[in-house]
Amino acid sequence: MWVSVRANVRVSSAARRSAREALQVATRAGGLSAIIVVGMAVIGIAVLYATFYVWLGVDSPGSMKVTDLPLLLVGYGFGASFVALFAQLGGGIYTKAADVGADLVGKVEQGIPEDDPRNPAVIADLVGDNVGDCAARGADLFESIAAEIISAMILGGTMAHRCKIEDPSGFILFPLVIHSFDLVVSSVGIFSIRGTRESGVMAPIEDPMTILQKGYSVTIVLAVVAFGLSTRWLLYTEQAPSAWFNFALCGLVGIITAYVFVWITKYYTDYKHEPVRTLALSSSTGHGTNIIAGVSLGLESTALPVLVISVAIVSAYWLGQTCGLVDETGNPIGGLFGTAVATMGMLSTAAYILTMDMFGPIADNAGGIVEMSQQPESVREITDVLDAVGNTTKATTKGFAIGSAALASFLLFSAYMDEVAAFAHEPFKQVDIAVPEVFIGGLLGSMLIFVFSAWACSAVGRTAQEVVNEVRRQFIERPGIMDYKEKPDYGRCVAIVASASLREMIKPGALAIISPIVVGFLFRILGYYTGHPLLGAKVVASLLMFATVAGILMALFLNTAGGAWDNAKKYIETGALGGKGSDAHKAAVTGDTVGDPFKDTAGPSLHVLIKMLATITLVMAPVFL
Amino acid sequence: MWVSVRANVRVSSAARRSAREALQVATRAGGLSAIIVVGMAVIGIAVLYATFYVWLGVDSPGSMKVTDLPLLLVGYGFGASFVALFAQLGGGIYTKAADVGADLVGKVEQGIPEDDPRNPAVIADLVGDNVGDCAARGADLFESIAAEIISAMILGGTMAHRCKIEDPSGFILFPLVIHSFDLVVSSVGIFSIRGTRESGVMAPIEDPMTILQKGYSVTIVLAVVAFGLSTRWLLYTEQAPSAWFNFALCGLVGIITAYVFVWITKYYTDYKHEPVRTLALSSSTGHGTNIIAGVSLGLESTALPVLVISVAIVSAYWLGQTCGLVDETGNPIGGLFGTAVATMGMLSTAAYILTMDMFGPIADNAGGIVEMSQQPESVREITDVLDAVGNTTKATTKGFAIGSAALASFLLFSAYMDEVAAFAHEPFKQVDIAVPEVFIGGLLGSMLIFVFSAWACSAVGRTAQEVVNEVRRQFIERPGIMDYKEKPDYGRCVAIVASASLREMIKPGALAIISPIVVGFLFRILGYYTGHPLLGAKVVASLLMFATVAGILMALFLNTAGGAWDNAKKYIETGALGGKGSDAHKAAVTGDTVGDPFKDTAGPSLHVLIKMLATITLVMAPVFL
Repeated sequence: MWVSVRANVRVSSAARRSAREALQVATRAGGLSAIIVVGMAVIGIAVLYATFYVWLGVDSPGSMKVTDLPLLLVGYGFGASFVALFAQLGGGIYTKAADVGADLVGKVEQGIPEDDPRNPAVIADLVGDNVGDCAARGADLFESIAAEIISAMILGGTMAHRCKIEDPSGFILFPLVIHSFDLVVSSVGIFSIRGTRESGVMAPIEDPMTILQKGYSVTIVLAVVAFGLSTRWLLYTEQAPSAWFNFALCGLVGIITAYVFVWITKYYTDYKHEPVRTLALSSSTGHGTNIIAGVSLGLESTALPVLVISVAIVSAYWLGQTCGLVDETGNPIGGLFGTAVATMGMLSTAAYILTMDMFGPIADNAGGIVEMSQQPESVREITDVLDAVGNTTKATTKGFAIGSAALASFLLFSAYMDEVAAFAHEPFKQVDIAVPEVFIGGLLGSMLIFVFSAWACSAVGRTAQEVVNEVRRQFIERPGIMDYKEKPDYGRCVAIVASASLREMIKPGALAIISPIVVGFLFRILGYYTGHPLLGAKVVASLLMFATVAGILMALFLNTAGGAWDNAKKYIETGALGGKGSDAHKAAVTGDTVGDPFKDTAGPSLHVLIKMLATITLVMAPVFL
Repeated sequence: MWVSVRANVRVSSAARRSAREALQVATRAGGLSAIIVVGMAVIGIAVLYATFYVWLGVDSPGSMKVTDLPLLLVGYGFGASFVALFAQLGGGIYTKAADVGADLVGKVEQGIPEDDPRNPAVIADLVGDNVGDCAARGADLFESIAAEIISAMILGGTMAHRCKIEDPSGFILFPLVIHSFDLVVSSVGIFSIRGTRESGVMAPIEDPMTILQKGYSVTIVLAVVAFGLSTRWLLYTEQAPSAWFNFALCGLVGIITAYVFVWITKYYTDYKHEPVRTLALSSSTGHGTNIIAGVSLGLESTALPVLVISVAIVSAYWLGQTCGLVDETGNPIGGLFGTAVATMGMLSTAAYILTMDMFGPIADNAGGIVEMSQQPESVREITDVLDAVGNTTKATTKGFAIGSAALASFLLFSAYMDEVAAFAHEPFKQVDIAVPEVFIGGLLGSMLIFVFSAWACSAVGRTAQEVVNEVRRQFIERPGIMDYKEKPDYGRCVAIVASASLREMIKPGALAIISPIVVGFLFRILGYYTGHPLLGAKVVASLLMFATVAGILMALFLNTAGGAWDNAKKYIETGALGGKGSDAHKAAVTGDTVGDPFKDTAGPSLHVLIKMLATITLVMAPVFL
């Protein structure tokens, strides 16, 4: 966040020179924050691991085995998701309440442009972009990576132990190595985006999306090579000489999944493609048809990602099962580790993806600063193009985040089931939804997602209404604002959204934390009286799985619909269907307003919610037994 | 439908006399259609049962046992859901495309009132109300009742067989008896709504909702009594003398669930209560906040129904398990039959509920006829009040339909699992979602619901756009329409929506039918090559269960949000927040337009979809083995 605030100013000043240079500054700044985030996750876990290793005297006789060590790291993941949920939820409410509030009064009622300094809510809006987008997405991916590394370490350790592999440290340290490589390959990708400072002239605006895509391709190719080398180095074992190759293919599955996810999201949210154009067209028949079309688009956009994830999970699991690793009784056991490796493959370009994400709000704010400091129109045009690209990259990152959450979800289930089995001293292998109570757990889990989304959206709506009233009040009480004679009171709007976002995130946050515990505990008691052992744990497992499925779909729906609405508006603003000020544009602005809490509050909070439900059940497992 | 068309005219003429009389005519007409629908379901099954009984010489030595007979009736249920899906989907597209199209041009662009004869789409709109609401909901509940009777007969038969009860016919015929009682008690309820013709004056408008509620209370009390008597009569058995009392309590659970569902839906969609008032208030800050608030309201409204259903399933299952009936090995086996009895309890007032539902479109159309025949304002006021009540009753019926679908879903799962076990000659008791493929089945099932909803909504959007263009064309080509000098070409609009609704329902309909078959078949092949027996059947079971859960939640969301938007608009039209013509009203009209395909196309189609998925998997089970 510190980086992005400073970068805003530099991007807006670079935009005065050339478009490409602005792009370069924005990506470098985004890249720096991204690498700090990923680096912190990797270093944090590595330091903890090393400390425990030395402190507990692991592998010396009579003490802990190295394969059990990763279990101690679960608390780190839980802490990360706890912080991420509140960062994402609070940040999302903050940014979107300010944004919606500023737009409703400024753009719609008073007819002043976006980010105009006369709007009292404009500072809150700009601060919000940093809080909600940079900081929150950083926390989200930090948490994804931390949770994924830890659960993959647990799985690798358990598998190596059960296969009686002599030196299991390769399997345990593998995730850390992959993510260290991520830092290197993503840096190369980021630096491949060159400036053209030497040209010295205002070049015609190139398509920044193409440049970012090129950098992504570089990163992907390097990631595949690095992945292949690491699997050969760390996952080669005498027991199954070809296992490393199967795992390398799992990694490839993950990398391809990431690429396809990015592509699908771009297809549904970029205005170069069919869906957003159709959505823009439906704006020409009114507000209502625009909303109907956007909702249908969002709901429909869940299909392809689900198919891709399904294929990825089945093929990674199958590659893992056939790798040749078997347990004492000769059963193949590599399947789950295969999906873990696929998740690592997916996240092996996380730093670059996060760079693209951070790029969005930086460009957006640079635009805001350009507008507020009243720079020439051509500078604003450059930042506007960057802003539109930023919308697409933000949407693709969300697609990426939800895809990795979906892949990782399967790891977290199995970690939960292993832990319950360990505590209960009896096998816990099945979650049978043909049992009524377990089915009800699923119903409650899905319902949790719906209610959480409802509360997240309505929190934005309520806070935005407060902002609207405050801004209206200022315009009435200080008529000089509109003629630049009086300075609006920016501080009060910032104070309103800050306190409201802290207050409003309590209800959905508490729901997420308390409900799995309450459900697990109630059914534990019910199970005790009706003679079902482990009923509480089973119901919670089912709650977790149904919530994950519903959460993935709901997040895809909310993110895609929101991104598509935003870009349908941007498309009309380029002059299509009547351009700015037409009735179609007004309908598109309505869609954009609706999409804001969808794509920046409820949607991303759901990513974190899914993972947090998993870690909370992991930590609270003993309560359900 | 034949009844409702004739009733429209009679209600509008009764409205010229008094409000109460109009209400009476509308409910009697609705009641007649409702009783025909329920009666046809009961008589159809009874006739089929009797025919098979005589024809196959059941219970004579060497032939079929009476407990296997209900299995032959599955085809009837499948046929019913097949017709219901297309009636609901096609009807829903028809009615809402006409409605949205007529409103967008008529009310918004030209500023003429609703149902004005100058609007070329008005006839299509009125026809649509009959097609979409009366006929489709009739088909929906016909199918619910048929599916529930058949699955309960199967369950009752299996249970009686396994408990070695001497005369199992009581358990098999129980559902038929309950629904025959339904016809009687609902008729009494309907006739308890008295007219006040003798007063002869235009009485001040009473609240029609209170009158309908009173009738419902009468029906409920009678249903409880009838239920208690039937259980004692048919379910008394020597093996477990107190079983009938437990089952009577299960029925009571169902009846209470129905009552609570009706109450919850009323709370969320009636403008006398908090949620719709808040929604109306959010319209005052614009289109965007109205949509955000409506979506949040709809998502949040899923919570209470899910909690109620959860309690109902657990308690009915528990009452059934503890009823004293045991199989050969002494395990209690009454649980599933308990949930079946609860479902019967819920549906035991179906005819009255259906009456309330049919009442809505009849009142709506009566209003349309009043408007078109240019009756005095006071007559239109009466039909407007009836129309608003009709909106609430329509919403409550949908709540009721989805509640009964949720309760019945559990029966249909177990019927499917029993059938697979019978075909595969091996036990099939568990659907373990910790297996990756089974989990993926669930992911696909939930996705199916999202995509189906998307396609249903966008079909309405597209068809409405066609209607808009046609109506605009007519207004331009025949300028005399606005001065009543030329007659608009109603026929073309009817033709457009009729052919479009038939065309547009193919895609979602095909998705619903083909996808479970394709998924089951693909995973059957995958299971064959990877050595998992029954993989196809398990994946389909998981698809079915996740689709049911997602479908219940999505339908609740869509129905409630739609109903709330509609009544928020009606609330503003009563004069609140600026009344008709204000900015708040325009925002509320947008919400209403969005809500139309939600509540009348996608939502109700999902009820049918849930049950059709269950019957289709039941019929296609051999393909997945």
